[in-house]
Amino acid sequence: MTPENTAPTLSQLLERGDLGGCTEWLSNSHGLDTVRVLARLSDEQREALLALLQPAEAAEVLEVLPEPQAIEAMEGLEPETAARILEELPSDQQADLIGEMETSEAEAILEQLDVDEAESVRRLAAYEDDQAGGMMITEFLAFHESASVADVLEDLNRNAEAYADYNVQYAYVVDESRRLRGVLRLRDLLLAPRSHELSKLQIPITAHLADTTDITDVAALFDETGFAGLPVLDEAGRLLGVVESDALAQAQTEEADATYRASQGIVGGEELRSMPLWLRSRRRLAWLSTNVALNVVAACVIAAYQETLEAVIALAVFLPIISDMSGCSGNQAVAVSMREMSLGIVRPSDALPVLFKELSVGLINGLVLGLLVGGVAYLWKGNVYLGLVVGGALTANTLVAVAIGGTVPLALRKLGTDPALASGPVLTTLTDMCGFLLVLGGATMMLDRLV
Amino acid sequence: MTPENTAPTLSQLLERGDLGGCTEWLSNSHGLDTVRVLARLSDEQREALLALLQPAEAAEVLEVLPEPQAIEAMEGLEPETAARILEELPSDQQADLIGEMETSEAEAILEQLDVDEAESVRRLAAYEDDQAGGMMITEFLAFHESASVADVLEDLNRNAEAYADYNVQYAYVVDESRRLRGVLRLRDLLLAPRSHELSKLQIPITAHLADTTDITDVAALFDETGFAGLPVLDEAGRLLGVVESDALAQAQTEEADATYRASQGIVGGEELRSMPLWLRSRRRLAWLSTNVALNVVAACVIAAYQETLEAVIALAVFLPIISDMSGCSGNQAVAVSMREMSLGIVRPSDALPVLFKELSVGLINGLVLGLLVGGVAYLWKGNVYLGLVVGGALTANTLVAVAIGGTVPLALRKLGTDPALASGPVLTTLTDMCGFLLVLGGATMMLDRLV
Repeated sequence: MTPENTAPTLSQLLERGDLGGCTEWLSNSHGLDTVRVLARLSDEQREALLALLQPAEAAEVLEVLPEPQAIEAMEGLEPETAARILEELPSDQQADLIGEMETSEAEAILEQLDVDEAESVRRLAAYEDDQAGGMMITEFLAFHESASVADVLEDLNRNAEAYADYNVQYAYVVDESRRLRGVLRLRDLLLAPRSHELSKLQIPITAHLADTTDITDVAALFDETGFAGLPVLDEAGRLLGVVESDALAQAQTEEADATYRASQGIVGGEELRSMPLWLRSRRRLAWLSTNVALNVVAACVIAAYQETLEAVIALAVFLPIISDMSGCSGNQAVAVSMREMSLGIVRPSDALPVLFKELSVGLINGLVLGLLVGGVAYLWKGNVYLGLVVGGALTANTLVAVAIGGTVPLALRKLGTDPALASGPVLTTLTDMCGFLLVLGGATMMLDRLV
Repeated sequence: MTPENTAPTLSQLLERGDLGGCTEWLSNSHGLDTVRVLARLSDEQREALLALLQPAEAAEVLEVLPEPQAIEAMEGLEPETAARILEELPSDQQADLIGEMETSEAEAILEQLDVDEAESVRRLAAYEDDQAGGMMITEFLAFHESASVADVLEDLNRNAEAYADYNVQYAYVVDESRRLRGVLRLRDLLLAPRSHELSKLQIPITAHLADTTDITDVAALFDETGFAGLPVLDEAGRLLGVVESDALAQAQTEEADATYRASQGIVGGEELRSMPLWLRSRRRLAWLSTNVALNVVAACVIAAYQETLEAVIALAVFLPIISDMSGCSGNQAVAVSMREMSLGIVRPSDALPVLFKELSVGLINGLVLGLLVGGVAYLWKGNVYLGLVVGGALTANTLVAVAIGGTVPLALRKLGTDPALASGPVLTTLTDMCGFLLVLGGATMMLDRLV
C-alpha cells in the first residue's frame, strides 16, 4: 500500500522532523516504492532520517538503501549515532559498511562501540569480499558437546530475542577451546529425549572452509555439498563463523556486477547518478584519460604511414572498422576467459590450451569477417588488391585479438591486477596498433597495385 | 583429499565402466578439484558417467557441473535415465534444466515422469528466470491450521527422509483450499505444548510475492523484510511455492553474469571452451556480423568526406580516437543506467532526469578530453584550427555519447529488447556516425585554415 497522494511526502515529514510520521510512512510503504523514495532523497535528508529514527528502524532503512548511499549516509552521521545503528546490523553487513568507508570515519564509529565488538568488526572488515572470512557471519548457535537437549532448549527459550535473526537450521557443537566437534540439526532436537547429550546427536563435519578460502572454492564446496551453511575454521580447528549460501550468492552477484562495471569503465566504486557531479566526473575521467593516452599511442602507427594514406585515401575508411571489429572479437574472448576463471575451470597456468581454443575459433571468424570487409572494399573501389589488404589484415588481426583477449585476463590475474578492469584497454591498444600496422604496412608493400 | 597420482584417473575408470571406482573417485575428490576434472571430460564421458551412477549420485554430479555442460549431458542421455536423475533434483533446478533444453529433448524426458510431476515441472519451467515463479521451489512444509504440534512432530518424524533437503526454518499454515493463513517458526514448535493447535502458534503473513513478481521487486521485498524466504501466492491467496533468499541471490548473479556476457558480445547462451568449435564460432559470428554491418554503415560517413581527408590527411589519425573515446564515454553511461534500472531506482520513464545528469557529467568530461586530444593535434601539426576541429568534435561527441548511453538502455527496456545486448551496437554506430560527421564536417567548413 503506498501512501495516498494527499498524505505528506517523506521529504515533508523530514522537514518537520516528524518522527511519528516518518515511522508511519515507512511502515505503510513497501518494496520498490520505499527504495525509490529513499534513494531519491538528498544525502542530507537520508542522514536526517537515520538520525531521527530509532537505531533498529534506521538499520532497516540502511538495509534497503543501495550500498553507496548507505555508506554516504553513515559517514555523514555523528559517530555516536552511526555506532548505535551499526550495532543493529548483522556482522557481515557491519563489516561491509565499515570496510567501504573512509578510514578516519570508520575509526570514529568503531571507537563508539565496545572494545570487543569493535575488534570483531575490524577483524571481519579486514577480509576481502571474495574470501570466506568476508562472507561469514559471527552470529551462529554453538553449544558445548556436554550440554543436554534440555540445556539447549532452555538457552533457545531464554535468548529467543537475541537469536531472532539467527539462522537456526543448524547449531554447532564445540569443545572447551571452541574447536568444532560436530553439527546439530535443530530438527533432531525436536525428536530427541531431553536428557540426551549433544555429543550423541551431533553429526560429523564433512566440509568446512578456512577464512582465506577463495570465492571460487567456496562456491564449488557449496555446489558439492548442497548445504545451506558451511563453518569457517581457523588453523587450530576453532569455529570463526559461518558462511551461509545466500552470503555466497550475494558475493557472487557483487563480483559479477563489479566485473560488468569494470569492463564498461565504471571504476573506483559503484556510481549512482545521485552522487555529486564532481565525484562522478572525476572517477569516469580517471578511466577515460588512461584510454585517451593509449589511443594516442595506437594512433601513432597511423601517423607513421601518412604517405601511404595520402596515396590510398580509401584506407582511412577501413581503419575504424578494423579497430572496432578487433575489439569486438577480443572482448568475446575476454568474457569467456573471465567466466571460465570464475567457474574455476581455467587457471592462469592454462594459457596454452586457451590460446589453441581461441585461435581455432578466431581463424574461422577472422576468415568470415575478412571476406565480408574485404568484399566491401573490393566492390567499392573495384580493386581486388584493396580487398586483399583490408580483408587479410582483418583476418590476421582477428587472430591477434582473440589470442590477446583469451590470455590477457589470465596473465592479469597472475599479476594480481583486476582482469575485468585492465583487459579492455590492454586489448584495445594492442589490437589497434597491430591492426593499423597490418593494413597500412600491407598497403605500403602493395602500393603500386593500390593506386 | 585428491586421488594420488598413481590412482587411475576418472577417464580411465569410465573407460573400464568401473562403477565402484567412479563412486570412490567422486567421494575422495572435493570442491574445485572435482569441478575441474568433471568440466574437462568430453561430452561423451560426462554422459557415460551420469548413466553409470545411481540417479541420486548422478544428480549430485549435475549440481557441480557448469549449467551448459549439465544441459548438454542430460540431452545426451536416454530420456528414461535422464528422468530418473531429474527426479532427484529440487524443483527449481528441475525447471531450470528443462527450461533451457531443446523442446523435443525436454518433452521426451518429461514423458518419463509421472503425469503430476511432469505437469509441475512444465509449469515452473514456463516462468522467466527473473520472475518469482522462476525462482521458487515447491518443496516446503505446509500444515493444516487445525493440526496440533504433536501432529506436526509426528509428520516430521515419519517423513524425515523426504524432508531431508527442505529448508525447515519455517512451515506454512494453510486452510483446506491451500490458502495461506500464517507462518510457523519451527523453533516455536520446540517450546510449545504438544497439544496446541497451529492456529495458536502461527504468526501472520506480513509479506508475500505473486508468481509474476519481477526480480527487482522481489529483491526490494527481501531487503525490506530481511526474511530468509517469502511465500508465493496465486490470485486466490493459495500457496504456490517459496522463494528463498539464496534463490533470489542466485538469480541476481545469473542476471549480472548475463549482462556482462551480452555487453561483451557473448550471445545465444553462455560459452565454455569445451563446447563444439562450430557452435562457438557460429554464436560469436552472429554478433560480429551484425557489428561489421553497422561499422560499414558508420564508415560511409568517412567515405563521403574523402576529399577533405585527402586535403588534411592528419584527420585520419584522429578518427579511430574519436570513435573509441566516444564509445568509452557512452559505455560508462550505459553501465550506470543498467545498474540504476536493476536497483529499481530508475525506470524507462525517467529518461529526462537521466539525460540531464549525463549531459552535466558529459560536458565536463567532454571538455577535458577535447582539450587533451585537441592539444595533441595542435602540438603535432602546429595548426590551432586542427586542434579546434578535433577537440571540438570530441567534446560535442562526448555529450552525444553520454546522452545516448544513458537513455538507450531505458528505451530498449521499454521496447522489450535486452538493453545489455543491444545498447553497445546502437551506441557505437550512432556515436561513430556523429563523431565522424563532426570531425569531417567541421574540417570541411574550415578547410582553408587547415591546409
